[in-house]
Amino acid sequence: MSKINDNFKQKVASIPTIKRLPSYLNLVKRASQEGVEIISATNIAKELDLEPIQVRKDLAVTGIIGKPRIGYNVNELFQAIQSFLNWDKKHKAIIVGTGNLGSALMKYGELKNHGLTIVGIADASPEKIGTEKNNLTISDVNDLPALIKKTGATMIILTVPPSEAQNVAEVINDTDIKAIWNFTNVKLKVSDRILVLMEDLSSGYAVLSFHLPFYKENEDTE
Amino acid sequence: MSKINDNFKQKVASIPTIKRLPSYLNLVKRASQEGVEIISATNIAKELDLEPIQVRKDLAVTGIIGKPRIGYNVNELFQAIQSFLNWDKKHKAIIVGTGNLGSALMKYGELKNHGLTIVGIADASPEKIGTEKNNLTISDVNDLPALIKKTGATMIILTVPPSEAQNVAEVINDTDIKAIWNFTNVKLKVSDRILVLMEDLSSGYAVLSFHLPFYKENEDTE
Repeated sequence: MSKINDNFKQKVASIPTIKRLPSYLNLVKRASQEGVEIISATNIAKELDLEPIQVRKDLAVTGIIGKPRIGYNVNELFQAIQSFLNWDKKHKAIIVGTGNLGSALMKYGELKNHGLTIVGIADASPEKIGTEKNNLTISDVNDLPALIKKTGATMIILTVPPSEAQNVAEVINDTDIKAIWNFTNVKLKVSDRILVLMEDLSSGYAVLSFHLPFYKENEDTE
Repeated sequence: MSKINDNFKQKVASIPTIKRLPSYLNLVKRASQEGVEIISATNIAKELDLEPIQVRKDLAVTGIIGKPRIGYNVNELFQAIQSFLNWDKKHKAIIVGTGNLGSALMKYGELKNHGLTIVGIADASPEKIGTEKNNLTISDVNDLPALIKKTGATMIILTVPPSEAQNVAEVINDTDIKAIWNFTNVKLKVSDRILVLMEDLSSGYAVLSFHLPFYKENEDTE
């Protein structure tokens, strides 16, 4: 689960709607692989445990129109979501912070599949600057404006320690960067032009922590 | 966004409902910090862009009862969600795979705040086994059953390379492990007793990739 700064709420589609779209996309992709041609909002709702009205509203933002009492064409729906999320286009990002999380994200395959290319990496540690990682040379955080210009990057993936986060925000504030994917827990002060998405892994953990006690019970009664 | 194996669907509360609860919790926490005492389902729905009926259904699983036309007591709602998710209890986990992502998760503060303690780490690389990381000695993956017994861990956080994932699943299959948080993209074959949650960062990325083109438009018209 992740949070977004208030300035970008309710623009064409709402953030929660957009965040649900990848799970629709996964479902539709699976259906397509299984040879399913038509899928109904009711079935999608059942599968993802949402209300059918929510599914219809969410999918409507992509512009797709389902046939009443029949459903959506699976391939059309896949294309519509993919195109709506701009996952069929290329995006360039710079990872700032080359510690464990930054290094992990450099190799994260799912992002590559959705059009993301890492065109640069940067760090604040003098001993790291100038060295190589994943075939990219680590730039100085203070040289980010030049790196952004050179690479044409529009997104920053921020994985620096909390104490360095706001400094990075200030360095890139007047560049062509349009979005920051913020993996620190710092609420950044940046220009209103820049979309900040705060990432938080708690929602996955919630599912696990909720279920743990049930297993014990099951075991005791076995 | 993340996926879960089918065996664990619809047990008391649905997975999508559980996954929405942390965002309710964040909202309620913020409201509490701002001195708000009562919050209505309609306001929560507006804030998170859900249908009010969805909010009422989701929150009902925690056992909380709102007052008609008034709403929920903020502190009671906070306690109810926290307790429902077992975030007020302690959980023990072992991280398997001490590469970049595993190392990043060892230090991930949000999980600590929700009761998670990392009690052990393991790896398959002979050169890593026996060395220390974050004050823990790296165990051999094949010694996991003994480590699980010794520590009382009930959760595995799996961050190994895809080719090693199924082997880990088999090693822990007959232990007291109740849940695997699977950061690999491998669909694991494990005992039905074990909950597997597949983690995927694509849903955060969806929000960013969706918004990127809008910025360009805004810029062009400035």
